[in-house]
Amino acid sequence: MEIISEFLSLSTRGFNDIINLTGPIQDKLAALGLKEGQVTVFVPGSTGGVTTIEFEPGLVKDLSEALDRVAPEGQVYHHDARWGDGNGFSHVRAALIGPSLTVPFQEGRLLLGTWQQIVFIDFDNRPRRRQLVIQFMGQ
Amino acid sequence: MEIISEFLSLSTRGFNDIINLTGPIQDKLAALGLKEGQVTVFVPGSTGGVTTIEFEPGLVKDLSEALDRVAPEGQVYHHDARWGDGNGFSHVRAALIGPSLTVPFQEGRLLLGTWQQIVFIDFDNRPRRRQLVIQFMGQ
Amino acid sequence: MEIISEFLSLSTRGFNDIINLTGPIQDKLAALGLKEGQVTVFVPGSTGGVTTIEFEPGLVKDLSEALDRVAPEGQVYHHDARWGDGNGFSHVRAALIGPSLTVPFQEGRLLLGTWQQIVFIDFDNRPRRRQLVIQFMGQ
Repeated sequence: MEIISEFLSLSTRGFNDIINLTGPIQDKLAALGLKEGQVTVFVPGSTGGVTTIEFEPGLVKDLSEALDRVAPEGQVYHHDARWGDGNGFSHVRAALIGPSLTVPFQEGRLLLGTWQQIVFIDFDNRPRRRQLVIQFMGQ
Repeated sequence: MEIISEFLSLSTRGFNDIINLTGPIQDKLAALGLKEGQVTVFVPGSTGGVTTIEFEPGLVKDLSEALDRVAPEGQVYHHDARWGDGNGFSHVRAALIGPSLTVPFQEGRLLLGTWQQIVFIDFDNRPRRRQLVIQFMGQ
Repeated sequence: MEIISEFLSLSTRGFNDIINLTGPIQDKLAALGLKEGQVTVFVPGSTGGVTTIEFEPGLVKDLSEALDRVAPEGQVYHHDARWGDGNGFSHVRAALIGPSLTVPFQEGRLLLGTWQQIVFIDFDNRPRRRQLVIQFMGQ
């Protein structure tokens, strides 16, 4: 049983930028040659989150609009009053979605549904350079 | 330390069908004889989610109604306009709840609270046959 | 590769009491001397949740207010009608946030962002004594 910590660098546009990570993670798994285990995707930072979705333009927009309703950008946030960042909504959305996702794999293949993709969402209010943790445990 | 990937088959009715998985998962753990570690429950598919709840009829209804408010069924979704599935709301709810849950165990027993149960929620807009991943890591 | 299950005791005030766990978890990790792996924080109980946030008073208030909107305290809950606990809102919030979080570590250090903290949220409607599971897997 092994633990291997890898990193994935991304440039994002912020404002609910939803990025499909499935290909890069499956590629890393193939390169490592692990057969059975799990991968944990973790966002170091408090304005991003990770989940899964059917990655097609309609749903990407639907999810983004749902997040706008849950923590609207136009509202007054105590964070902004204190720090002037203007990204209070980004922090709240990130805390609700969560920074961590675990996906099992078997026979070297992520056990995702046919249309299911792993996505990172950048909630911040500006373009960001991100480095995600992609940690594999398995054999 | 071992990794064992099991599967759990379910028939669901969709529309926030909330199903208690605690018994079957505890039974699998007992059959494997692992003492200490964790189990990851993963939903392969983008219209289901997994979390914990006190599984009693009142709360099952309360959680369902809260999900209806967060992503209402009656609303217009870009996904539906594009694909005609009519289940845009299902996908959005699934992405918000998330497809993955990790529960530690010790002395062969899931470390859940007394009234806390592991549940799968089927958000889709029709009955589905599901196969969940139940992956154990431990010794 | 080792699995070590630890526990963390807390006194909380309930009503979205948000408590920073980062220091105690990092201390436990240092005491164990593990270098690479992951820690799973798990809430045994159905009225608490775990996530990450930049732990500053403004955001703590913003997140609390967002949770109030998602599952308002003043609303009628079926759980309360049945059981008279008055904490239907607590259960719904807990199911939405989720009871489990996994954070990778490397070189003995949690791979959190600079301003990102691990937090427990007690959603219950009264002070509680909690015992959280802090389970380490690594080498």
